[in-house]
Amino acid sequence: GVLSLWCRPPAWDRATRPPHSPLQPPGLPLAPCRSFSNNKIQVELDESSGVAMMKFKSPPVNSLSLEFLTEFSISLEKLENNRACRGVIITSAVPKIFSSGLDITEMSGKSVEHYTEFWKAVQEMWLRLYGSSMVTVAAVNGSSPAGGCLIALSCDYRIMAEDPKFGIGLNEAQLGIVAPFWFKDTFVNVVGHRTAERSLQLGSLHPAPEAHKLGLVDELVPEEKLMEKAAAVMAQWLALPDHARQLTKTMMRKTVLDRLVAHREEDIKNFVTFVSKESIQKSLRMYMEMLKKRK
Amino acid sequence: GVLSLWCRPPAWDRATRPPHSPLQPPGLPLAPCRSFSNNKIQVELDESSGVAMMKFKSPPVNSLSLEFLTEFSISLEKLENNRACRGVIITSAVPKIFSSGLDITEMSGKSVEHYTEFWKAVQEMWLRLYGSSMVTVAAVNGSSPAGGCLIALSCDYRIMAEDPKFGIGLNEAQLGIVAPFWFKDTFVNVVGHRTAERSLQLGSLHPAPEAHKLGLVDELVPEEKLMEKAAAVMAQWLALPDHARQLTKTMMRKTVLDRLVAHREEDIKNFVTFVSKESIQKSLRMYMEMLKKRK
Amino acid sequence: GVLSLWCRPPAWDRATRPPHSPLQPPGLPLAPCRSFSNNKIQVELDESSGVAMMKFKSPPVNSLSLEFLTEFSISLEKLENNRACRGVIITSAVPKIFSSGLDITEMSGKSVEHYTEFWKAVQEMWLRLYGSSMVTVAAVNGSSPAGGCLIALSCDYRIMAEDPKFGIGLNEAQLGIVAPFWFKDTFVNVVGHRTAERSLQLGSLHPAPEAHKLGLVDELVPEEKLMEKAAAVMAQWLALPDHARQLTKTMMRKTVLDRLVAHREEDIKNFVTFVSKESIQKSLRMYMEMLKKRK
Repeated sequence: GVLSLWCRPPAWDRATRPPHSPLQPPGLPLAPCRSFSNNKIQVELDESSGVAMMKFKSPPVNSLSLEFLTEFSISLEKLENNRACRGVIITSAVPKIFSSGLDITEMSGKSVEHYTEFWKAVQEMWLRLYGSSMVTVAAVNGSSPAGGCLIALSCDYRIMAEDPKFGIGLNEAQLGIVAPFWFKDTFVNVVGHRTAERSLQLGSLHPAPEAHKLGLVDELVPEEKLMEKAAAVMAQWLALPDHARQLTKTMMRKTVLDRLVAHREEDIKNFVTFVSKESIQKSLRMYMEMLKKRK
Repeated sequence: GVLSLWCRPPAWDRATRPPHSPLQPPGLPLAPCRSFSNNKIQVELDESSGVAMMKFKSPPVNSLSLEFLTEFSISLEKLENNRACRGVIITSAVPKIFSSGLDITEMSGKSVEHYTEFWKAVQEMWLRLYGSSMVTVAAVNGSSPAGGCLIALSCDYRIMAEDPKFGIGLNEAQLGIVAPFWFKDTFVNVVGHRTAERSLQLGSLHPAPEAHKLGLVDELVPEEKLMEKAAAVMAQWLALPDHARQLTKTMMRKTVLDRLVAHREEDIKNFVTFVSKESIQKSLRMYMEMLKKRK
Repeated sequence: GVLSLWCRPPAWDRATRPPHSPLQPPGLPLAPCRSFSNNKIQVELDESSGVAMMKFKSPPVNSLSLEFLTEFSISLEKLENNRACRGVIITSAVPKIFSSGLDITEMSGKSVEHYTEFWKAVQEMWLRLYGSSMVTVAAVNGSSPAGGCLIALSCDYRIMAEDPKFGIGLNEAQLGIVAPFWFKDTFVNVVGHRTAERSLQLGSLHPAPEAHKLGLVDELVPEEKLMEKAAAVMAQWLALPDHARQLTKTMMRKTVLDRLVAHREEDIKNFVTFVSKESIQKSLRMYMEMLKKRK
C-alpha cells in the first residue's frame, strides 16, 4: 500500500547498500574513483563530491539505439551500486543536441523479436532513471525531442541552455505516432494535465524560453554556465540526507513507476503491434527519407 | 487497461471511418458539403478545410434546454460521422452570451421522468463533446456560466473575447447547487486541483482576464478577431495527423470519461433525488423570480 | 462511490445539525456566544458573524504536542457542533511563529504506546481540519514549518504576513525524516505534483514571497493587515450558501481523506517503527541539542 514508505528502502533502488545516516555525510572509506567509457556514453565519477558526470557521445544526434539504451541502463546500474556515487549530471558531448530520441532505424524493417528487445530496453532505461535513488540533474545543452525529452523529464531537475534555437518536447504526434502512457504520466507529473494535453496533441517542440515558462525545464542559463549551474544545483540537493530524500522521491514517483511495471508485457505487445503496421512503417520510411534529404 | 491506446481507434469515436493516414492529408473523395440548421443550433461545414462552424442561436441566452441538448448531441454525431469533417468551432450567434448553462425551467416543477430524461441529455452531450475525435475549439464570445463553461472546458482549446464584462466559471454553488463530479473532473483537468477547489466553492464567475490568468481559457482576443483567431488555431491543430492526435486525446481524457460511463445511472439518480427536494425547488423558484425582475 | 455527493451531508461532518438552507442566511435563534480557552489554544466565537477566532498560544513556538493536538481537535469539534459557527480563522498569539510543527520531544525517548497515541492525535487533528465543514482561513503570522505548514495547507484559504523572514514548507527531509503520504497528498492538492516533488525532497522552507509565487499561500499582506484581510476573505466565503459549499468541499477532498482513513492503522505502525529506530532517535537528539545551543 501507499504507506509502506516510511521505513523501506526505495523500491526502485536495486542496490543493497545501507543508506547514509540522515544527519551525517556519507562515510569516507569509499569505493575507488571510477571513470568508464563505452561506445556511446562517457561516465566520470568525482569521488570527492560523489557526483558522476554522464555524457552522451553518439554523433550525430545521440539517438537512442538499442546499443545506446543498453549502455545507458548499465551505466546507471553501475553508479547506483557504487556507494561513492550520490548524484548524476546528464549532458551531451555532441554540440547542439541533447538527444534526438528513439532511433527510428530500430523501428523500421526489423523483426518482431527485434522490436520486442528494443522496447524492453526503452522501458528498462526509464524505470532505472525515473526510479533512481541518486539525485539526477539534466543539463540540457541542445535540442531534446521525444525520447530525449523523456530523459530530461525523468531527472530530478532540468537546466537548459537558454538558446531559443534549442527545442524540447514530446513531439511524437508530429510523426504520426503516440507517446506511450508512461511518457505521458511522466510529462503530466512535471507540467500538469492541461499543458500535457495540449503539448502532446500538437506534438510541440518548445523553444527553451517557452519550455521554461511551461515548467518543462526548471531553469535557463547561458550555455557556457550550464555545467557550473548543474554542479551548484547538485550540491544543493546533496546537502540533504540521502535516506529521507530517497524515500520522498519514491513516494512521489511510485504510482507512475508501478503502472508500467504492472503493464510491461502489454506495453511491449502494443508497441510491437503498432510498429509492425504497414502504414506506420511507410510513415517512418518517409520520415527517414526526409531526414536524409535535409543533410 | 491503460495500455490499449496504441492501436485502437478512440473509444469515444462512434464513427467507423478509417482514420486518416498519419502523414497524409485526408483523401479527396469526401462526402458532400453540408449545412444544417435546427431550431437552436446552426451548423456549417466548410468542405475545403474540413472545419465545421457550430453557432448557438437560442435567444435570449442559449440556455441548455432538453431540446437544445438533443440538437447539440445530434449535430456532434452527424459531424463525427462525416469523413469530411475534422474539426468544429463552437460559438454563439446571440450577442454577449455564449451559453447561460442548464435551463432551470427543465429542473423546476417537472416529473421524475422529465428530470431523468433531461439529465441523460446533459450526460450525453458531455460524453460526445469531451470525447470527440474531432478538434474542438470554443470561441467564447460572451458570458459562459455553469453548463456554458462546461462546454468550453470540454473543447480542446478556448479563445475568449477579452471584454472583462464577460464572465466564465462553474458558478453552481451560487445557486445553492453542487456541480456534478464530472463537471469537477473536467475543470480540474484544465485548471488543476487548487484553482478548481477555490473556484467551485466560491461559485466564481471569472471575468475574461482573470479566467485567462487562471488557465480557464487559453487565449484572449478582441471580440472582432475571435473567429479569425479560432480559424488559425484550428488550422494549427489540423496540421497534425488525425490518428495520432485522436489517440493522444483519448489517452488524456479516458479516465475522466470512463468515470461517468461507469456511474451513469447513479449520477442520474443523484440528480433526480437532489432536484426533487422541496428546498431545492424553492431555491430555483426564487432564483427564477429574481431573473424575471432583472429584466 | 464518487457520486453519492449530491445529497449527502459531508462525510467528514460529524455534526448532525441540519445544513443552512441554500439561499437563506442561517436562522437567528442560535446557540449562545461562546468563548473558551484551554491551556494552549484560545477560541472566541463572534455570534453575529458566525466566525470563530482560534489563536495558538503555546510559547515559545506553538509546537504540536499531544496536549496541543488534543485541544485543537476538541476545539474544532466544539465549533463544528455549534450551529452558530460557520467559519474559523486560525492564527497565532505568539510573535513570529505560526506553529513550529510536531513536538519532537513527543517522538524522543518515549514508549511505543506513547508514539501510537501521539500519531493518532496528529491524524485526528488533520482529519478534522482538512475535512471540516466550516470555512477555514489560515492567517499565517509567522514561520510555519512541517506540521505548522500542514495546518495552513488544510485550510480553505491561506493569507500570510509578507515578511520574507517568515518561512513555510514541509521541510521534514531536512531532519532526515519523511513527510507521511497524507501530508504529501494535501501538499500536491495545493501546489501540484512538480512543486511538491521538488519542495519535499529539498525540505524547503519557503520565504513568504516565494511561498506565494508557488501557490503555497494564496495571498500576502502586511502583518498589521492580516486579521482584517482574513475577516474579509471569510465574509466572501460565507456569502455562499453553506450546504452547496460543504458538498463541493467534500467532493474535492474526499479522495485524500479516504486514503488516510483506509490506512490509518498501517500509517500508525509505520510511524512507530520509524521513530523507534536508533538511527532516527539519534538524529532527533542531535537536532534537539542543536536547537538548545541556538537559544
